[in-house]
Amino acid sequence: MSSTTTTKDEHFHDQCGIFGVYGSEEAANFAYLGLHSLQHRGQESAGIATANHGRLLLHLELGLVRDSFTEETLRRLPGRSAIGHVRYSTAGETRLREAQPIAVDYALGSIAVAHNGNLTNYLETKQRLESAGSIFHSTSDSEVLVHLIAHSKEQTAVNRVVEALQQVRGAFSLLFLTPNELIAVRDPHGFRPLCIGRSRNAYLFSSEPPAFDLLAAEFLREVEPGELVVVDKSGLRSFFPFAPVKRKMCIFEYIYFARPDSTLDGVSVYEARKRFGRALAQEQPAQADLVIPIPDSGVPAALGYAEQMNLPFEFGLIRSHYIGRTFIEPESSIRHFGVRLKLSPVRSVLNGKRLVVVDDSIIRGTTSQKIVKMLRDAGAREVHLRISSPPSRWPCYYGIDTPSTSELIASSLAIAEINKFITSDSLGYLSIEGLHRSIGGNGYCDACFTGEYPVEVRKNDIPQRQQLKLIGI
Amino acid sequence: MSSTTTTKDEHFHDQCGIFGVYGSEEAANFAYLGLHSLQHRGQESAGIATANHGRLLLHLELGLVRDSFTEETLRRLPGRSAIGHVRYSTAGETRLREAQPIAVDYALGSIAVAHNGNLTNYLETKQRLESAGSIFHSTSDSEVLVHLIAHSKEQTAVNRVVEALQQVRGAFSLLFLTPNELIAVRDPHGFRPLCIGRSRNAYLFSSEPPAFDLLAAEFLREVEPGELVVVDKSGLRSFFPFAPVKRKMCIFEYIYFARPDSTLDGVSVYEARKRFGRALAQEQPAQADLVIPIPDSGVPAALGYAEQMNLPFEFGLIRSHYIGRTFIEPESSIRHFGVRLKLSPVRSVLNGKRLVVVDDSIIRGTTSQKIVKMLRDAGAREVHLRISSPPSRWPCYYGIDTPSTSELIASSLAIAEINKFITSDSLGYLSIEGLHRSIGGNGYCDACFTGEYPVEVRKNDIPQRQQLKLIGI
Amino acid sequence: MSSTTTTKDEHFHDQCGIFGVYGSEEAANFAYLGLHSLQHRGQESAGIATANHGRLLLHLELGLVRDSFTEETLRRLPGRSAIGHVRYSTAGETRLREAQPIAVDYALGSIAVAHNGNLTNYLETKQRLESAGSIFHSTSDSEVLVHLIAHSKEQTAVNRVVEALQQVRGAFSLLFLTPNELIAVRDPHGFRPLCIGRSRNAYLFSSEPPAFDLLAAEFLREVEPGELVVVDKSGLRSFFPFAPVKRKMCIFEYIYFARPDSTLDGVSVYEARKRFGRALAQEQPAQADLVIPIPDSGVPAALGYAEQMNLPFEFGLIRSHYIGRTFIEPESSIRHFGVRLKLSPVRSVLNGKRLVVVDDSIIRGTTSQKIVKMLRDAGAREVHLRISSPPSRWPCYYGIDTPSTSELIASSLAIAEINKFITSDSLGYLSIEGLHRSIGGNGYCDACFTGEYPVEVRKNDIPQRQQLKLIGI
Amino acid sequence: MSSTTTTKDEHFHDQCGIFGVYGSEEAANFAYLGLHSLQHRGQESAGIATANHGRLLLHLELGLVRDSFTEETLRRLPGRSAIGHVRYSTAGETRLREAQPIAVDYALGSIAVAHNGNLTNYLETKQRLESAGSIFHSTSDSEVLVHLIAHSKEQTAVNRVVEALQQVRGAFSLLFLTPNELIAVRDPHGFRPLCIGRSRNAYLFSSEPPAFDLLAAEFLREVEPGELVVVDKSGLRSFFPFAPVKRKMCIFEYIYFARPDSTLDGVSVYEARKRFGRALAQEQPAQADLVIPIPDSGVPAALGYAEQMNLPFEFGLIRSHYIGRTFIEPESSIRHFGVRLKLSPVRSVLNGKRLVVVDDSIIRGTTSQKIVKMLRDAGAREVHLRISSPPSRWPCYYGIDTPSTSELIASSLAIAEINKFITSDSLGYLSIEGLHRSIGGNGYCDACFTGEYPVEVRKNDIPQRQQLKLIGI
Repeated sequence: MSSTTTTKDEHFHDQCGIFGVYGSEEAANFAYLGLHSLQHRGQESAGIATANHGRLLLHLELGLVRDSFTEETLRRLPGRSAIGHVRYSTAGETRLREAQPIAVDYALGSIAVAHNGNLTNYLETKQRLESAGSIFHSTSDSEVLVHLIAHSKEQTAVNRVVEALQQVRGAFSLLFLTPNELIAVRDPHGFRPLCIGRSRNAYLFSSEPPAFDLLAAEFLREVEPGELVVVDKSGLRSFFPFAPVKRKMCIFEYIYFARPDSTLDGVSVYEARKRFGRALAQEQPAQADLVIPIPDSGVPAALGYAEQMNLPFEFGLIRSHYIGRTFIEPESSIRHFGVRLKLSPVRSVLNGKRLVVVDDSIIRGTTSQKIVKMLRDAGAREVHLRISSPPSRWPCYYGIDTPSTSELIASSLAIAEINKFITSDSLGYLSIEGLHRSIGGNGYCDACFTGEYPVEVRKNDIPQRQQLKLIGI
Repeated sequence: MSSTTTTKDEHFHDQCGIFGVYGSEEAANFAYLGLHSLQHRGQESAGIATANHGRLLLHLELGLVRDSFTEETLRRLPGRSAIGHVRYSTAGETRLREAQPIAVDYALGSIAVAHNGNLTNYLETKQRLESAGSIFHSTSDSEVLVHLIAHSKEQTAVNRVVEALQQVRGAFSLLFLTPNELIAVRDPHGFRPLCIGRSRNAYLFSSEPPAFDLLAAEFLREVEPGELVVVDKSGLRSFFPFAPVKRKMCIFEYIYFARPDSTLDGVSVYEARKRFGRALAQEQPAQADLVIPIPDSGVPAALGYAEQMNLPFEFGLIRSHYIGRTFIEPESSIRHFGVRLKLSPVRSVLNGKRLVVVDDSIIRGTTSQKIVKMLRDAGAREVHLRISSPPSRWPCYYGIDTPSTSELIASSLAIAEINKFITSDSLGYLSIEGLHRSIGGNGYCDACFTGEYPVEVRKNDIPQRQQLKLIGI
Repeated sequence: MSSTTTTKDEHFHDQCGIFGVYGSEEAANFAYLGLHSLQHRGQESAGIATANHGRLLLHLELGLVRDSFTEETLRRLPGRSAIGHVRYSTAGETRLREAQPIAVDYALGSIAVAHNGNLTNYLETKQRLESAGSIFHSTSDSEVLVHLIAHSKEQTAVNRVVEALQQVRGAFSLLFLTPNELIAVRDPHGFRPLCIGRSRNAYLFSSEPPAFDLLAAEFLREVEPGELVVVDKSGLRSFFPFAPVKRKMCIFEYIYFARPDSTLDGVSVYEARKRFGRALAQEQPAQADLVIPIPDSGVPAALGYAEQMNLPFEFGLIRSHYIGRTFIEPESSIRHFGVRLKLSPVRSVLNGKRLVVVDDSIIRGTTSQKIVKMLRDAGAREVHLRISSPPSRWPCYYGIDTPSTSELIASSLAIAEINKFITSDSLGYLSIEGLHRSIGGNGYCDACFTGEYPVEVRKNDIPQRQQLKLIGI
Repeated sequence: MSSTTTTKDEHFHDQCGIFGVYGSEEAANFAYLGLHSLQHRGQESAGIATANHGRLLLHLELGLVRDSFTEETLRRLPGRSAIGHVRYSTAGETRLREAQPIAVDYALGSIAVAHNGNLTNYLETKQRLESAGSIFHSTSDSEVLVHLIAHSKEQTAVNRVVEALQQVRGAFSLLFLTPNELIAVRDPHGFRPLCIGRSRNAYLFSSEPPAFDLLAAEFLREVEPGELVVVDKSGLRSFFPFAPVKRKMCIFEYIYFARPDSTLDGVSVYEARKRFGRALAQEQPAQADLVIPIPDSGVPAALGYAEQMNLPFEFGLIRSHYIGRTFIEPESSIRHFGVRLKLSPVRSVLNGKRLVVVDDSIIRGTTSQKIVKMLRDAGAREVHLRISSPPSRWPCYYGIDTPSTSELIASSLAIAEINKFITSDSLGYLSIEGLHRSIGGNGYCDACFTGEYPVEVRKNDIPQRQQLKLIGI
């Protein structure tokens, strides 16, 4: 009879959020709350490691932070330092074996690591390590990090971490935990964010600053691209062990991934989105009666667009709060069922209106097409789709889950063809120049729009999952 | 160590949503999806009864619709007619025993009922029935309905339902299911909504119309106050078995309960909320830099307020998508922790600004107080709180979960005192006249604001829960 | 691919065990442990009701007692009196709705009941009650009891219970709990056991005495057939409200149902089984090398048989401790797979031997057939099956789950034909006279062997489940 | 209020059972059933790895086999070869991270291993491997095996396995699975059992033979001590890569661990136990009325004792079938509560009798003491305890979970003192000579009785768990 439909967003997805604590009596509890505030960066597994009396303790679970950790679990994670991780699973199945932090024993003792990003030389490094006798328990690129540390001949954990990281390339915001110290690192390009906070005597680390707000803690600063920060009983020290390169913060963090209440590298995500909307209005105005966003991510850009155009802003689409991962479909085919589950039209707002609909990006185009049809069914007279970023044409190799090039509609179709496919009355994207102008400076990675990859990607490093032989469940 | 905090909204809560299907091959599946679209009316239990080959089948579960029903469950609910129910549990604990539909055997066969509302003469009716030998399995007022039906001497289910309903008072939108027919009723005042839809040959019934949108079904009309609709194999018939009284649709459905994409009794909920916001601006203007809503319910009123005042509208508070029912608190007391979990400030929007903050209602005032403090902590220069309804002063006896009078801050404090308690710079409510003027006509129950109860409430019928002796778990 | 096999015993099954406590600070905890010791009488649901400050509290769960109750559950069941129930579900599906105790509100307050037995005039009583306006929530015959109590005009719970019980026929060992008293009753024939124990100041009631051993409590006496015992704050009182009839204790309790460490109505179950085995040896001797039991129920009879015949006794079949309710079968058909899961042969014991195999009963014969084949596969030279009870020919209407007559192999086949079907070398049953002689006296119900039903059974009362219309899940 | 009591046996515990399949269309299903029949060797985790199209697939679960694997799970484990493992967790907490099979990627591809036994040079090997850069994910000694394989420079999996095993000492019955072959090994002493079976074209491997019975497969032979068997598409080959040493099969397998229906190295476990009982009677006769076993493990020895003494054999203690891992205790202290939950006395058998009670071993003595008291409470006149093995004085380092020496009552007390502690009227153990005479030959490890360890145990290798730093959960 009926089958199930998945309700996954048509969006690029961040693969991880990381959080660390050093020096708090309730390190695990802080990590739990910090991870909760980073939940948008990964919903499929959550883990916390703590250091207590010379040992590391670890708890990993599938699912949301709020469901994965109980008071009992936190009680079993004593210690004054902790690192945590939330993960967006890229493959079809979610496996506990791929969850992080990864915690192992090696020659110097125990170490745990939480990684946000992606190592582009993962496969060649793995093969080199296997030749030297290493065994791999997971298909995670992050596992090479602990092997490299284990193979280092350096005498301290910090020096081993440095030596290991000098052998990998790509995107990495990392937190390492040993029984005695917490080490935070951001790759030289600074692809992924990482911030430092303070709560009384404790140092906190988080992918994004709102985690500090939740804990009533103070935002201190970003970890700088290429910086390695060590916190131990003697306080916080900072190192720059990599050759300096150009800053290449992921620009998609501003477009979609990060929380709107985050400020990353000094730029407010909410304000950036509004400016994208304003620039979009300047570049791609439309004759219309009102502006509506695709909630929630399109809201600030739509507000900016409406302001710039001096058009009314309304919520013409309501997003359901009760969407889970899968849904049982009705047998009788209902058009655009998946979109209906997630979004529903406010007919009184839409009826007879010429709409500007603002979204942050288009991936495959099928969802946009369904939304356009749903809006017309609800009475919209015209639908002008405006996208607050340039066409998404290239896959990301720096820690974002993107479909293959062939699935990215803008890789193969011109904008006019996309407009035709989506059946919108007009379609306009923000230009790459407009994007950069809005956010200021050019220290951003925009490879998904331009194909200009700041770190070389080898062909054989790309389709990682197919090359691996072990399927852990 | 740490304890848990609950994250319940400070809001009045609707106690139920109901959905019915007659004449579809996939009645249970439609009911499942219909209930999902009514999930905002009750998140704590869900149930579906179907009629199949002369029998009724029933499935009840605690939790959300999406989590409660599997393909296997739906497969075990065959039949061409179904009724379903979602419930907001009013007591501290949720009990399966109180879940609906209620399904029983009686002299004429089997019958099931799903109820949205509250019977004000429940306790006296229960006592009368107990004197006649009835036994009660639950503390639900709805259980008296099946007893009254069972005690009737009428020879058809429809006539028994009519006779039973003539003995109860209060608010009831009801769906009855027997092996042969589906009966939908709305009390003479029409306190709670109930709509009729059509999908091919099937008749559908729903508390609110967006359920029809999800199923790509057609909205036909409301069930009229005092109307009893019977659907069986010969089609749909309509009766008016009650003495006519004045229409008294619950005005709070427009203020907060109903979905913004609903149109109830011909009035768009979204538009009503915007008009409340505009009227509020006229009555209670404020010198400010921008208008922000308490998301999500305050959004349309805030848009209306901003439009009327010609002030910018921004999202200064972000609502978390990942809030569950309880959370483990940190040990170190974090100020306003419960509110922080749910809402977080966008500092770049708020900093240095004079804010108008629009919310739909104030119940106890403690949450509003915390929000005001959180906004000031985030840099707001002034916080002017505007409420898009009059002060909530009286409990509801017609199917809404309200705290006792003593907990309603507006019952004991004047507006100036509330303003002081909340620590806002100014506080303004929409007037009762403004409310009615905005929505048009006066066919609404506004007892929670005025204390003018359309249906008499006996003192001993009020604190129901304490009088009952049985705690089923 | 593979399907599942169920591992249900081929045995008659008792439908319930009941336990009660009056006057203990830890009534719920005692009930939990008492029910655990009665777990063999019903494994599919468990429930406890307690009385606390004028209210009844109830917890019902599917599954085993050890899995169903947590410390948290017991904490939520305060009170100094309790009744509990374990149930063997007779239908394919187990439903919480059928679990006991049944607890309801009625005119005098709250009452709960736990029932072991079966009411033979259930359907006619139900129809009479429905005509008077009663509604039924379950398909359990026990539900009529609370309706009859509710319809009584007597002024005390005790008198209402008496009046109700005078209207029902059949088998009932019952425990009623009200906020003030505990009432224990055994039907006039005394079909099912019920015992009284004492632990300090608390009175205990249990289907079988080993529950008292577990609690280090004292066995006082049986509740007499036809006796009604009331315990309240003034102590224990005894009434005999029924016309006296002949004692008819279920003889199958001694053959299979009861625990071997029970003594019921003064007769040790273990000793009775051994005497059945000795009498069986006298009536049905066999030329053999050794005697083996079908474990565990056949053990004492096999010991008796071996003693009488002066043959060695060995464990030639080992019973698995890890059998659950269902198992995934291999695709490749494995002969007698279901039996292999449960029993495995000890080849060194069996090889080359002429065996007497002692079992307590044969129901359908298919399991016996598989066991005989398994024994021959393991090298047995001859297999002489001996059954320590007469042929099971008639269904039970007094609280035991038996297959329909057509499924009872001894209903349609003569012993020689059964022997042929089972492929044993010889087959011998204990005679009805031998059975009675072994246990002494004739105050036993042996209707399953003789068809002589002590309480009349109406034809339309038999296939209850088909007549009911409601399937609660 | 109440706390929980654990119901763990007072017994030594085997740490693992292993099962393998090569060449069956339903390898995973066979492994599932084979593991079920080995469930007595480990109840706390279960795992199966299969090889399919060049990949290994793995499923691990905590709990019993019957609960851990569903049809869906088996469907996700396709392939024609499989290995499986059940594990008895030695530490307080059970961790999925310690479950087996261990499956990893290394230079030659993927490999999985299931281990029964214990490596006595684990810690020194681990330290050596860590110095060479290995990282450890678990505290399991078995993990060193995959590291040694990964570090080998040999070009085939078989040669690498050989090289790895030549570096470890201790007890190991092992199954390795690669995409192309299954490798079975038994250490040179043959401490733990391992058998080969055949089902049509498939080769099977199992710790004990009854697994073959369940699958209607044929027992072929034991894997010989020191033998390495490779099965691949060209059939079964056998190697003997270790220097030959004296056979040292664990004698406790016959006393307690193995199933009574097993035949190991040609000796029937059931018959061995009966012979222990007969020899015990010869060495330690007692004036008594009857012999009772501590069920279930003491049954065959008690039968042998009773036969030898020509005394009646009875079941004076009944073992509960419904014991789980923990139980909620009553608040009021009940004497010997833990034992009461597990065993209950049959008063009619025990009352007034002089008993010989036969058990297989005494570990701490506290349970024996409680049993003696329970028997006296039930009326026993005298209690003569007889143990069908010598005093257990030394810990096992070869794969059995034993308490530390200080907890072994026979390490510090003489037999007369133990008798006094246990409060038995007399206490007799089987002598070491009697033990060996009963079973024939002396190719057995009896280190737990004699302290004569066949493989050297280094002091620093003993308290392994304390030295490890990582606690994975």
